[in-house]
Amino acid sequence: MARRNYPLAKVYGLLEPGPVLWLSTAGRERPNLMTLSWHMPVEFEPPLVACVLGNQGYSDGLLRKSRECVLAIPTAELADRVVAVGNCSGREVDKFRAFGLTPLPAAEVAAPLIAEAWANLECRVHDTRMVNRYGIYILEVVKAWVDTSVKDPKTLHHRGMGAFMVAGGTIRLKSAMK
Amino acid sequence: MARRNYPLAKVYGLLEPGPVLWLSTAGRERPNLMTLSWHMPVEFEPPLVACVLGNQGYSDGLLRKSRECVLAIPTAELADRVVAVGNCSGREVDKFRAFGLTPLPAAEVAAPLIAEAWANLECRVHDTRMVNRYGIYILEVVKAWVDTSVKDPKTLHHRGMGAFMVAGGTIRLKSAMK
Repeated sequence: MARRNYPLAKVYGLLEPGPVLWLSTAGRERPNLMTLSWHMPVEFEPPLVACVLGNQGYSDGLLRKSRECVLAIPTAELADRVVAVGNCSGREVDKFRAFGLTPLPAAEVAAPLIAEAWANLECRVHDTRMVNRYGIYILEVVKAWVDTSVKDPKTLHHRGMGAFMVAGGTIRLKSAMK
Repeated sequence: MARRNYPLAKVYGLLEPGPVLWLSTAGRERPNLMTLSWHMPVEFEPPLVACVLGNQGYSDGLLRKSRECVLAIPTAELADRVVAVGNCSGREVDKFRAFGLTPLPAAEVAAPLIAEAWANLECRVHDTRMVNRYGIYILEVVKAWVDTSVKDPKTLHHRGMGAFMVAGGTIRLKSAMK
């Protein structure tokens, strides 16, 4: 993937369409990643993102400890690996190795970028007040990388139970909405 | 639209793909609606949904007062009206009338269903702790209506600045993820 530094002011537009994400975290022995679909933008700039993690998950423990992660956006050719990553725990499996994904050093955080993903967002935990009640983390995106050569990325949008809507084309309308 | 009562346990799968939504509220003179893209599921059942509203908006005031709303999911043929609704305020405009949308009585809440939408979710405000800081409301969906005759709804997914990804087809993979 041709990773280019992407303006933080435009990051909301990567997440607002609702793509399935990978969340990577650094660990003592090895990095981990999970599949995540419950997320939304909360602020334009600096970009804040809310996401929901299960309170007992392995990634949740690593995120609580490290307070850093990478949100990566995979596209349709990675669908099998999106499901595989979501169906096992980093407690038992080295997911990067098991599923042929490549961790790359990030610029601002210890968590790795995922080389195969279309976009990678380096994040720091901004607010944990809602974690115990809802599993909601508020993250701040501090650095963004996108393969800007891809115009209409075929992102995956989970409809539940292994059904994924694959992103279609883009229409452009005159609008004052940011 | 052929509205059928839809199981609350499956509502998360309507929102998880990240479609643009309309949020309708009841008002003293007339109902209002707004366009909304910042939302995510928070719990499967009872279905809880987080969404972000601007703190100064007209809908925000109506939602704070009534503590009820309807989240409706429009499809691509309504794209022009999705943008039109998002580009004006209910303070100045009777949006249902101005844009030819039809409010219908809901079963559980005072806010109206939107006849032209593919899906309508009747909601009550569940948690306002994050409203002042982030504009985040946690809503509980108490009743859901879907046109189940539509298999692959052409939902709209906002990429920012009037660019909308239109939902493509659905792929189904074997997965243990709910």
